[in-house]
Amino acid sequence: MRTKLTLVGAGPGDPDLITLKGIKAIRSADVILYDALVSPELLEYNDCAIKVFVGKRAGKHSKKQSEINDMIIYYAFKYGHVVRLKGGDPFVFAHGKEELDYAESFGIDTSVVPGISSFQLPGLYSYPLTHRGISQSFTVVTATGSDGKISEDLQNSISSKSTLVILMGMRKLSGIMQLFKNADRKDLPVAIIINGSLPDAQVISGRVRDIEEKLNAEPTLNGPGIIVAGESLSTHSDYQRVLKSWLKTA
Amino acid sequence: MRTKLTLVGAGPGDPDLITLKGIKAIRSADVILYDALVSPELLEYNDCAIKVFVGKRAGKHSKKQSEINDMIIYYAFKYGHVVRLKGGDPFVFAHGKEELDYAESFGIDTSVVPGISSFQLPGLYSYPLTHRGISQSFTVVTATGSDGKISEDLQNSISSKSTLVILMGMRKLSGIMQLFKNADRKDLPVAIIINGSLPDAQVISGRVRDIEEKLNAEPTLNGPGIIVAGESLSTHSDYQRVLKSWLKTA
Repeated sequence: MRTKLTLVGAGPGDPDLITLKGIKAIRSADVILYDALVSPELLEYNDCAIKVFVGKRAGKHSKKQSEINDMIIYYAFKYGHVVRLKGGDPFVFAHGKEELDYAESFGIDTSVVPGISSFQLPGLYSYPLTHRGISQSFTVVTATGSDGKISEDLQNSISSKSTLVILMGMRKLSGIMQLFKNADRKDLPVAIIINGSLPDAQVISGRVRDIEEKLNAEPTLNGPGIIVAGESLSTHSDYQRVLKSWLKTA
Repeated sequence: MRTKLTLVGAGPGDPDLITLKGIKAIRSADVILYDALVSPELLEYNDCAIKVFVGKRAGKHSKKQSEINDMIIYYAFKYGHVVRLKGGDPFVFAHGKEELDYAESFGIDTSVVPGISSFQLPGLYSYPLTHRGISQSFTVVTATGSDGKISEDLQNSISSKSTLVILMGMRKLSGIMQLFKNADRKDLPVAIIINGSLPDAQVISGRVRDIEEKLNAEPTLNGPGIIVAGESLSTHSDYQRVLKSWLKTA
């Protein structure tokens, strides 16, 4: 029996944002190991495969990475083709490389199907990460290091002209905004996208100085959120409208 | 008649790397305006739509952005639903925002379907952009500014710990590597991916000091290439093998 592992990016939430290649991999799977952020609809592409949930559930501990690694090996040798279905892209802050290396060390064939990552959601809502004459780059950074503190890379990027997309930062929003304020960037445009690509998506735009207030003014969803900060956001109509109303009252 | 513009990311080359949502948009199009890097197979999802090539052809000037903008308006008012099919992701260095804004200024409904972008290709070849304990961020930057010189954002990122993904930089490879050398980073791992995701993809890995030599040693393809530079690449088996052979001979 041929043993195989395919890491598949399930995309940011909307089940139609998986790639065709991802669907084909799901259809050919003998076993699917899937995360919490994966849409249940994606599992319906394969009625025969064994489906195993390996994500985090409210109130319960999630599986350790080493346990997931071992499950991949076990299922591959027992059934053949394991699809590891992960939210977003399997190589963007997702331990994809660790799972791949571990499987390869057992002689299992591996392949990767990229996915739309949550940092591509700003485009879905017309917030550009780059814009001619404003920003020629963007940086994707995880908010917290393995020590649970604000990551060194984020701290180093606070004064950068590069548009910042901050993942896993909602719980540290206040601390992150304080870093921008300390760097004298209180007018920097900031947008927050929660449950991006899903029907109940919530998008809040403002600036460093007022984004927390705006967020707190609305009932906030519990889903995963990303924080985007950069001058290129100012080309979005939200900011243009504000500008127009300022000009009128001035 | 309802007028509509959908910007669709066609992905990096492999026609199976488009999203299901992208295919659905193509199927519902009355007109498809497509770029040079879009796989012809994607156009086969719709036999009825008018298909108009608006990309760059060898030896000929490509359409100006303003011409494309006007074509969108013309076709939307004449036929209804225009799909603008772009290589990669429509919001990553792709003028997507400009096309969207222009259409909206004519009262045309707009929506965006993200695509797998070329900077996600390193994952396809098992090169991680981030890795625990090595790098907690990556930066995507265009090599050249509108003046044709190496972009300011790239120059500012040369000493960053963030993994760099440099787009549209193949013609400036020598100048970019010189910047790294000037910053005393000649041992930094660098990978070049040409025609990524296609059957004839070419992946070359090395370090700042030798990547040009390695690239020149092989017949190089003409397709679009990306340059990746960062310590997290060193976890790839290419670098591990080199390390093992050093340890053996030491």
